[in-house]
Amino acid sequence: MARILKGKEVADAINENSINIINELKQNNINPTLAIFRVGEKDADISYETGTMKKCKQLDVNVINYLFPEDVSVEEFYDKLEEANEDKNIHGILVFRPLPKDRFNDDRLRNSINPSKDVDGCSDLSLAGTFTNKDLGFPACTAQATLEVLDYYNIDIEGKNIVIIGRSLVIGKPVSMMLLNKNATVTICHTKTQNLAQICSKAEILICSAGRVEMVNKDFTNKNQIVIDVGIDWNEKKQKLSGDVDFDEVEPLVQAITPVPGGIGAITTSILINHVVKAAKNLNHLK
Amino acid sequence: MARILKGKEVADAINENSINIINELKQNNINPTLAIFRVGEKDADISYETGTMKKCKQLDVNVINYLFPEDVSVEEFYDKLEEANEDKNIHGILVFRPLPKDRFNDDRLRNSINPSKDVDGCSDLSLAGTFTNKDLGFPACTAQATLEVLDYYNIDIEGKNIVIIGRSLVIGKPVSMMLLNKNATVTICHTKTQNLAQICSKAEILICSAGRVEMVNKDFTNKNQIVIDVGIDWNEKKQKLSGDVDFDEVEPLVQAITPVPGGIGAITTSILINHVVKAAKNLNHLK
Repeated sequence: MARILKGKEVADAINENSINIINELKQNNINPTLAIFRVGEKDADISYETGTMKKCKQLDVNVINYLFPEDVSVEEFYDKLEEANEDKNIHGILVFRPLPKDRFNDDRLRNSINPSKDVDGCSDLSLAGTFTNKDLGFPACTAQATLEVLDYYNIDIEGKNIVIIGRSLVIGKPVSMMLLNKNATVTICHTKTQNLAQICSKAEILICSAGRVEMVNKDFTNKNQIVIDVGIDWNEKKQKLSGDVDFDEVEPLVQAITPVPGGIGAITTSILINHVVKAAKNLNHLK
Repeated sequence: MARILKGKEVADAINENSINIINELKQNNINPTLAIFRVGEKDADISYETGTMKKCKQLDVNVINYLFPEDVSVEEFYDKLEEANEDKNIHGILVFRPLPKDRFNDDRLRNSINPSKDVDGCSDLSLAGTFTNKDLGFPACTAQATLEVLDYYNIDIEGKNIVIIGRSLVIGKPVSMMLLNKNATVTICHTKTQNLAQICSKAEILICSAGRVEMVNKDFTNKNQIVIDVGIDWNEKKQKLSGDVDFDEVEPLVQAITPVPGGIGAITTSILINHVVKAAKNLNHLK
């Protein structure tokens, strides 16, 4: 039976840090504020938005919703984004991506968010910060969530053999750089990797961010392994939310594992809000 | 006996591409020009400068040398750099780094070079391009040299297990991202890696950029391995230039290997010049 690395405890610790900063901001008459941009009515976007708004309310962080119909014009969208970029009372901006690809260029979008307010770490400058290990903007929230869970549960990273499945800019690439900066030996695998299961089975820590429901089975594991499951998707077969890992099969065979739901997903929103309150502090030049 | 992957042939192919672009530029009355900034008299800088100037002369690329004494003031240096940034007749800028650390901040320096002229790919924007696989500035020359040698000798990368020793921004990190973008499975090792030799011995392609003379010995290899040696340093014991690899010991045991000197080092300058002529083309809006 593996140790279950629950996200809630990690999130609570991050929220506590946020609350301290929020109190400091309120004493200075600053109301930390997140602007959320959503185009259309995608289920995943609405679900993340609802969760974020709920947690913002709990922590007394203000949310401004910019909602647009699926057929919004490029001009109207960017006018509003520019408004939020310049508004001194908005400290963080989250845009649900991708926008409709027939009209919106994702590179333009990512780099149109004021870097100081880019709390989801999606702009080239924020990504450069993750790559170079410099303090430029915020890291991507999901990538940071992975490091936070390892840190909270005192899992040693230095010199460890860590394998990451997935090479996206949201998680695979940034998390590999962040782990490398903490002295892990990092292997990055993906759909073109040969002998994937065999490579993963040698990992001391396995980070699964492939985005394929339950693709990680017993062949990927070893009994001393720590498994971090970043995936979350609808499992048609089992009619429930599942991660990249076949939890029922893998959990009895490894040392520790994050559950889905209730693992990494439970931490991401807390990190986003932590970035918002830190951005509010930075933008108002509080030490 | 391994196949020797000589750099000269690769450099010749790159130079041929440069010559075509140079001819096109000259037809448009553009003289491609590289500005080289050097502070002080470090041997390694002067050696690289001399090599670059020689190759520029061969290819009919203009060089302007900005030379400063070791005690140059920060103001004077940046005034000249700004001059080169704005000079329409300068297309590429190479600065020997690091500058004296007591006065010069390396992050400021890297990001003070006009990104369009950053032919050595050291600015955050250029690095972000390598990280995100987008066309932002030029990749670091040595990292690109590694990919060029694999490409020239038709060494398949896709799905291959490639291990990189070293995680610097000049070579380890960018080369890992560039190989990942070409569908390799990439492992990044460094001084904190446990069981380094054992990990390396499993690699189908081993890229050595540790910067430690002859640290890679027979224990790091296997008979099907391709070894790319990026290191170049003075070997006190043998009183000659050596790479990271103990060539005499490793060469008989692997499938292919780059020599030092005459391997990667022979390609880097050609890539730098190729970047200069491409920058000249871009800056003059030639298709």
